[in-house]
Amino acid sequence: MTKAYAAQSAKSPLAPHSITRRDPKPADVQIDILYCGVCHSDLHQARDEWHDAAPTAYPCVPGHEIVGRVSKVGSGVTKFKAGDLAAVGCMVDSCRTCSSCQRGLENYCLSFPTFTYNGADKHSGGVTYGGYSDRIVVDEAFVLKVSEKANLAATAPLLCAGITTYSPMRHWGVTAGQKVGVVGLGGLGHMGVKFADAFGAQTVLFTTSPSKIDDGKRLGADEVVVSKNAAEMKAHAGSFDFILDCVSAEHDINSYLQLLKLDGTLCLVGAPEKPLPVAAFNMLLPRKQFAGSGIGGIAETQEMLDFCAAKGIASDVEVIPIQKINEAYDRLVKGDVKYRFVIDMASLK
Amino acid sequence: MTKAYAAQSAKSPLAPHSITRRDPKPADVQIDILYCGVCHSDLHQARDEWHDAAPTAYPCVPGHEIVGRVSKVGSGVTKFKAGDLAAVGCMVDSCRTCSSCQRGLENYCLSFPTFTYNGADKHSGGVTYGGYSDRIVVDEAFVLKVSEKANLAATAPLLCAGITTYSPMRHWGVTAGQKVGVVGLGGLGHMGVKFADAFGAQTVLFTTSPSKIDDGKRLGADEVVVSKNAAEMKAHAGSFDFILDCVSAEHDINSYLQLLKLDGTLCLVGAPEKPLPVAAFNMLLPRKQFAGSGIGGIAETQEMLDFCAAKGIASDVEVIPIQKINEAYDRLVKGDVKYRFVIDMASLK
Repeated sequence: MTKAYAAQSAKSPLAPHSITRRDPKPADVQIDILYCGVCHSDLHQARDEWHDAAPTAYPCVPGHEIVGRVSKVGSGVTKFKAGDLAAVGCMVDSCRTCSSCQRGLENYCLSFPTFTYNGADKHSGGVTYGGYSDRIVVDEAFVLKVSEKANLAATAPLLCAGITTYSPMRHWGVTAGQKVGVVGLGGLGHMGVKFADAFGAQTVLFTTSPSKIDDGKRLGADEVVVSKNAAEMKAHAGSFDFILDCVSAEHDINSYLQLLKLDGTLCLVGAPEKPLPVAAFNMLLPRKQFAGSGIGGIAETQEMLDFCAAKGIASDVEVIPIQKINEAYDRLVKGDVKYRFVIDMASLK
Repeated sequence: MTKAYAAQSAKSPLAPHSITRRDPKPADVQIDILYCGVCHSDLHQARDEWHDAAPTAYPCVPGHEIVGRVSKVGSGVTKFKAGDLAAVGCMVDSCRTCSSCQRGLENYCLSFPTFTYNGADKHSGGVTYGGYSDRIVVDEAFVLKVSEKANLAATAPLLCAGITTYSPMRHWGVTAGQKVGVVGLGGLGHMGVKFADAFGAQTVLFTTSPSKIDDGKRLGADEVVVSKNAAEMKAHAGSFDFILDCVSAEHDINSYLQLLKLDGTLCLVGAPEKPLPVAAFNMLLPRKQFAGSGIGGIAETQEMLDFCAAKGIASDVEVIPIQKINEAYDRLVKGDVKYRFVIDMASLK
C-alpha cells in the first residue's frame, strides 16, 4: 500500500488514506516522492469546484508538481535507473498518436492527456492519484529528468506553474528587447516575472496590491504597475509586445488589451470561471490577439527544467509538512503564500 | 462647389448638399467619382451611432469605397495622370512616420489615420468628406490603381469590405489545404467566402439563415452550416485553422472558438457594440487565438485589387442612384441586400 492524503468528498478536508500503485510494467518508472507542490487546481479539484467541466471522483489524491527519486524501473526503461532524480507534472499519459502528440504537444492531445490525478487510469481502470503520496508509478515517456544541483523543493512547482508560464512565452517568442507584462503575482505570476526577466525582456508586473511592489522588483520586474491606478495604466497604452495574464479571478481584460501594441498578444493562463467580456474595438485598431495556453508538452517541460537548472531559476516556496495541507488550502484561498506551498513528503512517513 | 449627399444631423436623412474640395496641391490627385459603395459604417456614422468612440461632425458626407477617374493631378504626382482609373478606401492620409506607417500599415498609424470621412482634414482644418459626392482630392500616396478591365461598380466595395477580409486571411496565412470558416453572409462575409475559396482553402460558411445556403455555395463555400443547428456545429469541433467572424450583431463567440483546432485563430472584423463574453476554458485546451483586424494598409490594398483583377473577383452588388440612399440604409438595417449597395454617381449630376 502507498500512503497518501485524500479528500473523501467535496466537503471533507484532506486526510490520511491508502492507495495502491501498480508494480512497474516494462516502460514504467517508480518514483519515491520527495516534494510535491500545491497548485490552486488541487484545491479546485479536491472541492469539486470544476464540477461541470471535470467532476471529481472520490477519494481524490491531488498533486501534480512532483519531484522524487527513482526506486525501481521496468525492464524496458532506458532513460532512468534506480537512484536518479525524476519529476512528474500534470500528465502521466496521452494517446501518443494524434497530430498534437506527434508534435510533442501531449498537453493538447486530441483525446485529452491522462491527467496526473482525477484522470482515467488506463492501467487500473479507475482514476489516477496524484503526488500527495509517498510513491508514484509513471510511464517513462512522461517522466522528466531533474538536475542533481537543483533545489528540489523549489523545483517541484516548475512542473505546473513553471511550464504553464514558460510555454506561452516561448511560443509567442518573448525575447530581449521586447516589453512584456505579467498580470498578477501569485504562483504562476511569480514564475512569469522570473522567465520574462531571464529571457531579457523589459518586464512589467501588474498587481492590485501596492504591498507587492518590492517583491515584484526582487523577482525580476523592471517596473511594477498598480493596476488600480488608471493614470499609471494609461501611460503604458499600446506599448506591450506580450502580456501573460495569470489571474484566475474575474478581472477587466480590456484594460490590458489596450496596453498591447500592433500584433501584440495577451495570453491567458489563469482560468476565470465566468466568461471575460472582450470589447471588439479593442482588438481591431490596431490588430492584436487574445490567446490562451495550457501547461506544455513533455519535451518543452524538459527544456524548461534544463533552462532553470542552467540559469538557477526556481520557485519561491514555503515548505510544509503534509499535516498542514488543509491550513495551506485556506491560506491559498486568501492568497497568503509567497509564492507556492510545497509539501515535504518525508512528513508522510 | 462639389455636389454631395450629406446628413445634417443624427436624425435627418441624407439630402443634397454642396461641399468645397481643395484645388490639387503638388502631391494630390483629383478624382471624378464614378461609383461609391455603401458600407454599414456609413450608416453608423451618419446617424452618430458611434458617438462615444467617434462622434459625428455635421454635415456628414459618408462613403469610403470610391472608384473614379482622375481629372487633374498636382505638379509632383508621378503615379497617376488625368484619365486614369483610381480608387480611394477608408483612409486619405496618416502620419507616415510612425512604426506602423513605416511598415506600410497606415491603417494602424499610431496617431490614427485620417479617415476618408468624419476625419480631421489636415488641409482644410475641418472634417473630411467622403465619396457620396462627385469629386474627391486625395494625396497620391493614398490613391489606388484600378485595372481598366475591372467591373467598376463591383470593384468599389473591395476598398473596404474587400481589404477588411483579405488582410486578416493573408496575415494569418490562409492557404490551400486549410479549413477556413466565414461567419455571416453580408457585405464582409460574402467577400470572405470568395477570398477563402480563391486562396484554395476548404471554405465553410456559417449563417443563421437556411435561405442563404444556395447563395453561400454559389459564392464559393464548400459547405454551409446553419449555426443554430447544434449538431451541425458540434460536427466541426476542433477542426478549423482560421475563422473570419464578420458579424457586427451580438452573437455567441464561444460556439465558434470551440471549432478551432490547436493554434487556430478566430479573427473578428465586425465590431459588435457590446463586449463579447469569452470563456477562458475555450482558449486554453488547446491553445488558440481570438484576434481582431481593421481594414489594411495601402500596399496591401493595392495587392488585393491586383489579385482581384487577376482572378476576376469582385463584390456582388446592387447599383442604386444616390436618390435611393435613405431607402438603401433602411434595407441595410434589415440585412436586405445581396451583398453591397453601390451608388452610381452619374445620378448626382
